[in-house]
Amino acid sequence: MATVKRYKKEDLTTYCLGATVSLEYLNIRPKDVTKVYVHSAFYESETKEKIEKICREEGISCETNDKVFQILSQKENCFVIAMIRKYRCELDKEQSHVVLVNPGNAGNAGTIIRSCAGFGVRNIAIIRPGVDFFDPKVIRASMGALSRVNFRYYDSWEEYAETDGAGQRHFYPFMLDGSSLLNETKICKPFSLIMGNEATGLPAMFSGIGQPVRIEHTHAIDSLNLPIATSIGLYEATKGDFS
Amino acid sequence: MATVKRYKKEDLTTYCLGATVSLEYLNIRPKDVTKVYVHSAFYESETKEKIEKICREEGISCETNDKVFQILSQKENCFVIAMIRKYRCELDKEQSHVVLVNPGNAGNAGTIIRSCAGFGVRNIAIIRPGVDFFDPKVIRASMGALSRVNFRYYDSWEEYAETDGAGQRHFYPFMLDGSSLLNETKICKPFSLIMGNEATGLPAMFSGIGQPVRIEHTHAIDSLNLPIATSIGLYEATKGDFS
Repeated sequence: MATVKRYKKEDLTTYCLGATVSLEYLNIRPKDVTKVYVHSAFYESETKEKIEKICREEGISCETNDKVFQILSQKENCFVIAMIRKYRCELDKEQSHVVLVNPGNAGNAGTIIRSCAGFGVRNIAIIRPGVDFFDPKVIRASMGALSRVNFRYYDSWEEYAETDGAGQRHFYPFMLDGSSLLNETKICKPFSLIMGNEATGLPAMFSGIGQPVRIEHTHAIDSLNLPIATSIGLYEATKGDFS
Repeated sequence: MATVKRYKKEDLTTYCLGATVSLEYLNIRPKDVTKVYVHSAFYESETKEKIEKICREEGISCETNDKVFQILSQKENCFVIAMIRKYRCELDKEQSHVVLVNPGNAGNAGTIIRSCAGFGVRNIAIIRPGVDFFDPKVIRASMGALSRVNFRYYDSWEEYAETDGAGQRHFYPFMLDGSSLLNETKICKPFSLIMGNEATGLPAMFSGIGQPVRIEHTHAIDSLNLPIATSIGLYEATKGDFS
């Protein structure tokens, strides 16, 4: 039996916790799934059949093994774990991006990834330091939507702007003092929506980049939560694209 | 010393975990704060001074007591706990509402409350069964914004519709198969944005109530996360209100 250990950032593999999350990876990136563990208490269901069918077709080992769950999962409602070989993505330079500058929270990152997939913006740039997108907490919070987006890390804003962010591209940094209201701003494509850290927002220098925008809200709160602000930006920028 | 116990739903008091959250309650509802506990490791800061000042002015006991933190808080970054006497709110029948039908998750409820405060919709109806808004997890996820909204529980949609939801009011149930696109729908005031449970959405009968709306997204995801969908609804419904 392969030794299974709690995730560490330097590992070459990560894992999906939960049947729905695992099924996303099996559907979208089966070649990166190296093994599937199923809990003995996982009841017969359409989901179970789908998982077993893909494993058979793709030659992925599917093992019933309850010990793995004790080591990797604290949640009582997790009955499937898919092991994932970490992979590298390239951003599509022709397409719109979300740029996360120093994102700090795994749950927030996952929620943002899910919204990106939902609004068809499939390229995410992360400016270091930033949360590890391969962290199982991120994958779980994304409901497996991480499998559907390209993501890449950059050491600085400049590195992004000179490489994948170069060319005919429109930058929209989201800032509390952005000079333009989001709902009065025409978002041109391809765009890069640029979001700061949960606690500190974007550094002031971003007010000199592209068209800084703000989402208007009352003074009752300091700021909107990061996934909320990002998703409102995505909603506004992609309105009418899916009709 | 008063005995301090982990929160249970039937308790008459609840608590705020964290300095920022506690300060919100001290600022907005000081009369409902019965006691403040400060950890001995809480450094001198503007926040600490503000908290101590309000406690002095309002005659609230403020005690340094590290044991309370071991009992009530699992987080290492929690240095202030404010005890709150539970209170009853009335919804404002003239104002817009958010109606949560069977909300299941405390973190989501808190995020929704924060967005409601942010977009100036200060009245929230909860149709039972639903998560307990006084749960410390809800208060913490709201960043204390629970203090700024009115909320009330109803045993059924009918009970809400016949009481606080009665009168000249426009209902917008958010449904995956809503007949009108959110961005093409004129949201009239006062409105009630009606949101379903995280896993199951709204019961089908809501398609016969008011103007069901949907937020368009790709097929890459089943649905947007509940706080995201609610916040996009709030954003669209209050656009231009704060300029």
